[in-house]
Amino acid sequence: MEYSSQLLEKAVYQISKLPGIGKKSALRLALHLLKQDEIYTHQLAESLTKLRNEIKYCQICHNHTDQDICQICSSNHRDHSIICVVENVLDVLSIENTAQFKGLYHVLGGIISPVNGIGPSNLNIDSLLGRITLETKEIIMALSSTMDGDTTAFYLTKKIKEKGCKVSSLARGIPIGGEIEYADEITLGRSILSRIIFE
Amino acid sequence: MEYSSQLLEKAVYQISKLPGIGKKSALRLALHLLKQDEIYTHQLAESLTKLRNEIKYCQICHNHTDQDICQICSSNHRDHSIICVVENVLDVLSIENTAQFKGLYHVLGGIISPVNGIGPSNLNIDSLLGRITLETKEIIMALSSTMDGDTTAFYLTKKIKEKGCKVSSLARGIPIGGEIEYADEITLGRSILSRIIFE
Repeated sequence: MEYSSQLLEKAVYQISKLPGIGKKSALRLALHLLKQDEIYTHQLAESLTKLRNEIKYCQICHNHTDQDICQICSSNHRDHSIICVVENVLDVLSIENTAQFKGLYHVLGGIISPVNGIGPSNLNIDSLLGRITLETKEIIMALSSTMDGDTTAFYLTKKIKEKGCKVSSLARGIPIGGEIEYADEITLGRSILSRIIFE
Repeated sequence: MEYSSQLLEKAVYQISKLPGIGKKSALRLALHLLKQDEIYTHQLAESLTKLRNEIKYCQICHNHTDQDICQICSSNHRDHSIICVVENVLDVLSIENTAQFKGLYHVLGGIISPVNGIGPSNLNIDSLLGRITLETKEIIMALSSTMDGDTTAFYLTKKIKEKGCKVSSLARGIPIGGEIEYADEITLGRSILSRIIFE
């Protein structure tokens, strides 16, 4: 596509580097910016630059934060004896959104994936093991139910159990609202094996 | 959603103001930026700011340009006797992409839309009429086939004919590859009335 302006072409090129945004969407976004007030573009550019330059990672759980220690780790209202291990920051937000968990988190920063060349040394595993004290009652594995997720959970479980701490995992089964008819065999099989007993 | 960082929250807020990007996509984009090299965020922010600050509009056709007169209007290889009237800059790019048109353009900057409070005075209509000289052979209406598009074309046609210039419109009919079975009645009806005669 031949653009009428080099500035436009450069902006489209940079925007289209973002995930999920193709050339056409990038062009639409660039033209949208041109229609809006100048202030908005400045605010957008400034907030992106500030985010990238000034964001910190919590020294305990590696979540994003503006301080040295994040709000969750420094809160007195959270249960410091339970740590939920997640792959990335999005997962923290997702679990926080459920309002069902009041413990702490630990962001691994990825999962073990031999195919992608990610080994245990690339992840925040040492700091996780370092966090386990006598007060730690349970570590919850909230990792994806994929090959890599299971590998990571298996590796971590071994390491954590060596430290004498209880390990658990998110329940696997039929999603709420899911129909038996459309559930895959493996999920259905597992959900029978780990059925909930009404007492 | 409670963010762990105010910087992140602000960036997500600004990104999610863009059209077609919700809170969740905005968060994903922000987290993507944090994973990339700092240089990229700076290049992105800079290209957006530069685009917004430095872009100009062609004094003749109102297309985006880096100079005072755009490449198309200043080209000797284009037919200056035919002007194609379009709603916005995206339409210029779309038509240029077909490589079927070698005339000039005129960007209206919108279409007449009483519902949205856009009247003829809000559009680049005076400058279009001012461009029509004795050398101008034809003005092509390349406007959307909607109520507003037709209204605008009707209004412009009247004004242009007063100046004694020929006016034409994009052909309406079955799209290439389109099946008769699935064509809507109005399109099908019009395509019969304005059928192409093989000679």
